[in-house]
Amino acid sequence: MILKKPTLIVIKKKVEDNIARMLAKIGDPAKFRPHFKTHYSQDIGAIFKEHGVSKITVSSVEMASYFSSNWDDITIAFPVNLNEIEEINKLSSRVKLNLLVESSYSANFLATKLKNNVGIFIKIDTGYNRTGIQPSEDKKLNEIISITDSCSFMTFKGFITHAGHTYSAKGKIEILSILEQSLIIGKQLKEKYSQFPDIIFSYGDTPSCSMADSLDTFDELRPGNFVYYDVMQYHIGSCKLEDIAVSLACPVVAVHPERNEIVIYGGSVHLSKEAIDADGGFKLFGYVAEFEEGKDIEIISQGWNTPLEGTYVKNLSQEHGIIHTTDETIKRVKPGDWLGILPVHSCLTANLLREDQRVV
Amino acid sequence: MILKKPTLIVIKKKVEDNIARMLAKIGDPAKFRPHFKTHYSQDIGAIFKEHGVSKITVSSVEMASYFSSNWDDITIAFPVNLNEIEEINKLSSRVKLNLLVESSYSANFLATKLKNNVGIFIKIDTGYNRTGIQPSEDKKLNEIISITDSCSFMTFKGFITHAGHTYSAKGKIEILSILEQSLIIGKQLKEKYSQFPDIIFSYGDTPSCSMADSLDTFDELRPGNFVYYDVMQYHIGSCKLEDIAVSLACPVVAVHPERNEIVIYGGSVHLSKEAIDADGGFKLFGYVAEFEEGKDIEIISQGWNTPLEGTYVKNLSQEHGIIHTTDETIKRVKPGDWLGILPVHSCLTANLLREDQRVV
Repeated sequence: MILKKPTLIVIKKKVEDNIARMLAKIGDPAKFRPHFKTHYSQDIGAIFKEHGVSKITVSSVEMASYFSSNWDDITIAFPVNLNEIEEINKLSSRVKLNLLVESSYSANFLATKLKNNVGIFIKIDTGYNRTGIQPSEDKKLNEIISITDSCSFMTFKGFITHAGHTYSAKGKIEILSILEQSLIIGKQLKEKYSQFPDIIFSYGDTPSCSMADSLDTFDELRPGNFVYYDVMQYHIGSCKLEDIAVSLACPVVAVHPERNEIVIYGGSVHLSKEAIDADGGFKLFGYVAEFEEGKDIEIISQGWNTPLEGTYVKNLSQEHGIIHTTDETIKRVKPGDWLGILPVHSCLTANLLREDQRVV
Repeated sequence: MILKKPTLIVIKKKVEDNIARMLAKIGDPAKFRPHFKTHYSQDIGAIFKEHGVSKITVSSVEMASYFSSNWDDITIAFPVNLNEIEEINKLSSRVKLNLLVESSYSANFLATKLKNNVGIFIKIDTGYNRTGIQPSEDKKLNEIISITDSCSFMTFKGFITHAGHTYSAKGKIEILSILEQSLIIGKQLKEKYSQFPDIIFSYGDTPSCSMADSLDTFDELRPGNFVYYDVMQYHIGSCKLEDIAVSLACPVVAVHPERNEIVIYGGSVHLSKEAIDADGGFKLFGYVAEFEEGKDIEIISQGWNTPLEGTYVKNLSQEHGIIHTTDETIKRVKPGDWLGILPVHSCLTANLLREDQRVV
């Protein structure tokens, strides 16, 4: 494998371990509907299939279409885009499709335009406040359920939430409290609508699912990022550094010892502009690691070493990445060498590198 | 033109006006080598050609290869990536290619590996401190020039700089002072190396090139972003709001009147995570405009209205955009409507939407 330009290196063994660990907590592959937006890859999808997973989550009609060649039970976990009704009708003629609805307006639209059976989840806001209906908004919930129930092409499947507020929560106790609260909300909703005995509560976000000891009290779980993890998840406490399954291999193009900076070919069109506030009050766009086989590698197959101490991506332009490093490290780096950047947000990096990745 | 999903709308008339305005300042198309990383599009490139432009700038070997089918004089304005020497040799057999060098290590590597003639620019740091050699570093400059001069495949073309510090400068006076300073540095370097009478000083960044009344004292100009402009350039003062030539048409998927928020299908995989600090101490990921033809459009051909007052993209997830708006605006928006998002950084947005754009 000769690398030329920034390339996402995915370590299959780490992906398998991350999947196996999550599956062990869930207990039953039938309750696992992983989000595939993180990897957006048929190759990585195939690894899930080997672990017994048969249902998936995606975030767009386009992504559902991409995966529909290998998967026949798909939830589009995004408020339905009414402009794609034709594509939705095509897809639902071929696969079991679930849509998210959070207004009677959208429900009514679907009721008049759907041509095949789809499952309907109502999006519930359990505290993230991004979108969804508050669990207490009976009128809205009743309206949507009534529309769904009276349309022959719609089957009310239950309630769905993404507890995205775990990303800004302070520590494990707060994160697990969000998970507990969401579980309670889900149970109450199912009891309130017990005339539909088959409805479920679908939950999922990587921080809380990673920190929980067990997830077997949930009906369905949809974490996605855990398959790769990243520096953000490491900072949240969702994973160990060695669980991060991807790094962006980047060529060094310039070295500036006078200010301890290395310039790599690898910028915001590769890593995305996602940053985290590091301890010490500065922004950080990725950790930096050397590869196992040294500096002059052409073959990167053994993964990367522990990220370098005192070394991080301090800034990104479109194609430039600026690495701050130590006196010691800068001495052994020269143009043409490769460095591995552990991304802050692997979902965005993997999306940008869809055409340039290697699973090793 | 029926839109289904987030689509970049490019107004050809505005692109033409932006090109014509820049060209008028430069005075001569032969001194204009626009950066094509912003649009990364043969269609937009063709508009430059209609204006007499025959030389271009790109930021990667990959981008040079893409444009080489229509352009035969290309500068890769990025420190040369030694791992792509084979691709460089292929390209330089077909087109006039200029490379950037900023170390004797890279110059020596090229001297032993090049198979065809290339032009060599030395990257000069005129104050941005991203990369390049300080103009006072005689030893480094002499070494590179000596290597270049003694290699039959290398022609020393001159000095190149990107004054990226104009992006963080405070106002027009400071920005134009950076331009003046750079011009002086360029002149001094050319005088110092007057044994090479044909060398030039190549300069370019959108803020200073946009604010200067005239650019005819420069040898070569390479601005790129000006072709589209964006909200960042508007905030810097490089353009008027109506000069912004692109907007991302996004479907509304949810409306939350209780907190004056609209959710669009249009997230960080479309707009990028680039944000600016708006007056008032909050982050802003884009301005929001309605399209000429009203809310229920299927055809967006007349462009967008003036951005809505008190309305902006306040946050982005992977596919979700969260718009904050006013009591008045929120009343007339419903799921399925289209809104135009003026991006913070059009280069990154255009790169993400390369497969989903319409020039109208």
